[in-house]
Amino acid sequence: VAAAASAARCSPELRTRAPQDRDPSRLTAESAGALLDLLPHTRAFRVTMRRLRPSMRAANASEAIVERIIATHLRPGIANLAPGTAHWSPPERLVQAALHGDGGYGDIRGEPALLAALREEHGREHVMVTPGANQAFVHALLSTCDVGDEVLLWRPYYFSHLVALQLLGLVPVFADCDERGLPTPGAVRASASRPGGRLRAVVLVSPSNPTGAVCPAELVRELGEACAQAGAWLISDEAYEHFTYGAAEHASAAELCAGGGEQLLCLRTFSKSYGLAAWRVGHLSYPHQLHDAMLKVQDTMPTHACRASQRLALAALEGLGEAWVREQVATLEPARAMLWEALAPLRGGGDALQPAGAFYYFVRLPGCSSRGARVLGEGGEGGEAAEEERSGLLHTSRLTDCEAEEEAVRRLAAEHELLTLPGSAFGRPGHLRLSYGRLASAEEAEPIAERLLRAAEALRARWGET
Amino acid sequence: VAAAASAARCSPELRTRAPQDRDPSRLTAESAGALLDLLPHTRAFRVTMRRLRPSMRAANASEAIVERIIATHLRPGIANLAPGTAHWSPPERLVQAALHGDGGYGDIRGEPALLAALREEHGREHVMVTPGANQAFVHALLSTCDVGDEVLLWRPYYFSHLVALQLLGLVPVFADCDERGLPTPGAVRASASRPGGRLRAVVLVSPSNPTGAVCPAELVRELGEACAQAGAWLISDEAYEHFTYGAAEHASAAELCAGGGEQLLCLRTFSKSYGLAAWRVGHLSYPHQLHDAMLKVQDTMPTHACRASQRLALAALEGLGEAWVREQVATLEPARAMLWEALAPLRGGGDALQPAGAFYYFVRLPGCSSRGARVLGEGGEGGEAAEEERSGLLHTSRLTDCEAEEEAVRRLAAEHELLTLPGSAFGRPGHLRLSYGRLASAEEAEPIAERLLRAAEALRARWGET
Repeated sequence: VAAAASAARCSPELRTRAPQDRDPSRLTAESAGALLDLLPHTRAFRVTMRRLRPSMRAANASEAIVERIIATHLRPGIANLAPGTAHWSPPERLVQAALHGDGGYGDIRGEPALLAALREEHGREHVMVTPGANQAFVHALLSTCDVGDEVLLWRPYYFSHLVALQLLGLVPVFADCDERGLPTPGAVRASASRPGGRLRAVVLVSPSNPTGAVCPAELVRELGEACAQAGAWLISDEAYEHFTYGAAEHASAAELCAGGGEQLLCLRTFSKSYGLAAWRVGHLSYPHQLHDAMLKVQDTMPTHACRASQRLALAALEGLGEAWVREQVATLEPARAMLWEALAPLRGGGDALQPAGAFYYFVRLPGCSSRGARVLGEGGEGGEAAEEERSGLLHTSRLTDCEAEEEAVRRLAAEHELLTLPGSAFGRPGHLRLSYGRLASAEEAEPIAERLLRAAEALRARWGET
Repeated sequence: VAAAASAARCSPELRTRAPQDRDPSRLTAESAGALLDLLPHTRAFRVTMRRLRPSMRAANASEAIVERIIATHLRPGIANLAPGTAHWSPPERLVQAALHGDGGYGDIRGEPALLAALREEHGREHVMVTPGANQAFVHALLSTCDVGDEVLLWRPYYFSHLVALQLLGLVPVFADCDERGLPTPGAVRASASRPGGRLRAVVLVSPSNPTGAVCPAELVRELGEACAQAGAWLISDEAYEHFTYGAAEHASAAELCAGGGEQLLCLRTFSKSYGLAAWRVGHLSYPHQLHDAMLKVQDTMPTHACRASQRLALAALEGLGEAWVREQVATLEPARAMLWEALAPLRGGGDALQPAGAFYYFVRLPGCSSRGARVLGEGGEGGEAAEEERSGLLHTSRLTDCEAEEEAVRRLAAEHELLTLPGSAFGRPGHLRLSYGRLASAEEAEPIAERLLRAAEALRARWGET
């Protein structure tokens, strides 16, 4: 796990550039020193203090990237293109309605009325309401995977998925999305058939965070079949289910998995679609055989989601519904178009495919490599490259990509007042992720797009063609 | 872990008496059967389905006990003495005030105003607000303990603590409370010095769930020192900090740990004291060196606690405060006195010490052994017994205690309309846990006490003296 974790992060050089107060070794020495001043100066105490340290799983896990970027670069006047939320929230009357209800513990699976509505909407029997989709992902891992089991993530991945694996003692196995940003069923087969492999679950994020790519129905079905054949769970993160544009349509794994979705865990959330991020309410559906496991996990960790949040989620589902969400999503179109235009200098002449989902752009920086790593799977070529990946070896070119990317994040913040996230947090150094979810109109998007265009031109001028 | 997990549960005979729909093996076969009807009947698919199973950590973890008891025994008219909450909730005006605020993601550590208030109240710099204290306990484990590390629980323990260890790949090490229901510093030393031991953390719950025992200040201090000397983290669960009676006073580890509490993680919650169980808001304080680890855990799992819940918690802290909580706790005195009286037939003539904290009684059933297991630690006698414990061996007498206890739970529910929890869920078969937290007055408590007295007399008549 430690090797895989460090493979997913940036170079040591970069990490020493982080603020000093995030260096655990320094803090430990300081804390121990202060303590030793207060305690009897016996050898036993000195020995003791050396043993009190954070867990290796937490120390070696990837950093809380949004926290670091915000702490380092956020300041008044900057346009924050980092957050994973859209700009709307439900009307006040719904919030009022959510207040009134029992103040004691509720049903750990969720409020019965909300569960019934979710069962109805998604056509699956077993649903559990969680405090957000990140927590649902942890529930999915704990109920299906044991320590040392392998979980397949497609690169670029959503950073919280990797950290969850690291914290829970699971081994991430990486494969690269294809040139359209889509996962490949071959990677599932290659990973499952690798000698000594322990593939237990596969994570699909569609529409994708960070690329915005939307997985076509046929591909979702193929992935479901590949997982069933491999004996691996498919964990389908559909947080952006309602965020598609133009002709694109979201294909839910819950409707497409053969055999009633016996291999499928499907995650969704109210945070994005209904603007309820502050309320922490998501949900997951799962096959019958995981029911007892889910009860144990839920009872032991969050107990249940906040009941007022659940009442608000139900009110949003019933009082607003998908039509309302679609109207809100349409308000993102101007920002989506303008920011895409502004990124032209980084798109090498405009041949790049505009992503059709979520509210992100994931762009390569000039001079950086198109992929952070080699492909696992697809025709058996992945064996050696995969081994190298898993051992944590890094190419010189990736170190350079990391440096370029950190520099770009810094310049965009300092010189152009644009806050973005580095691609290395998503397993693909040399890229940036930009969110346009907070830009509510053409008027709001226009000045941001102008700054972004200037930034993109400056980067191209400095570092050459992409 | 599996062995330790099964050691903490009841006999196989008892488990088969559970409702059929909770038997995972039956469900798996059913699900697989249904799936095979739909899928191509190839050998590959049959093989596949056998591999899709819940994780062993979840399957082998102790059951979600409250769920099972409620599903089995709760019916209209029954007095529910199972839940871990008191009867009050904050006034409506505070709930109203909590509504208004930002709907986007907040500070992952917690709302700044709430964090400031908690820092002030508890005198510790690093505080994180979590969706309840159970989640805070998981945060504590993930930030301090790696897979295979040992964590000491005193028996009887709080059941969610054990399940958390099981789910996170940690090894529970058990020690028994003394005859007053108090933990013993010697167990920490014995466990830490055991050859091959990997003690990493020690869990203290005071006031105790399930016994109600209150740990005196001197003992808390000794435990803190024993942990510092052993190089083990002390995780102090103080969910019942405000629930003490008579002359008893809660002693917070945060005030008593030497050296600034560098070994201490301290958990608290608004669920009990302020009646905010439905809102899911607790918090933990921790030393500086765990800060980065905590950020990663929080960001990856719940992201943050519901922001409306946090605003309500702050309003409760500032608008009600400890004086209000003390007034509410005083309303439990009649129920506490009456139920204690009613339990006299199970107390062997009244020589048992009435617990001075929380809102639980944990009583031994007639004919059952006083301890579920032998003592680990205290004078070095624990080696062999501890090994036997850890290997999962069970004594015949404990099987009998388990059966007696399940029968008592069933009889109390069916014949006396009293819902209680079995002691085996807390690691001590042959006992019952009763909560009087929901009984708001003498009028409410009286009929319950009458039924309890009849039940206690019937048990004594049937099974003999304690």
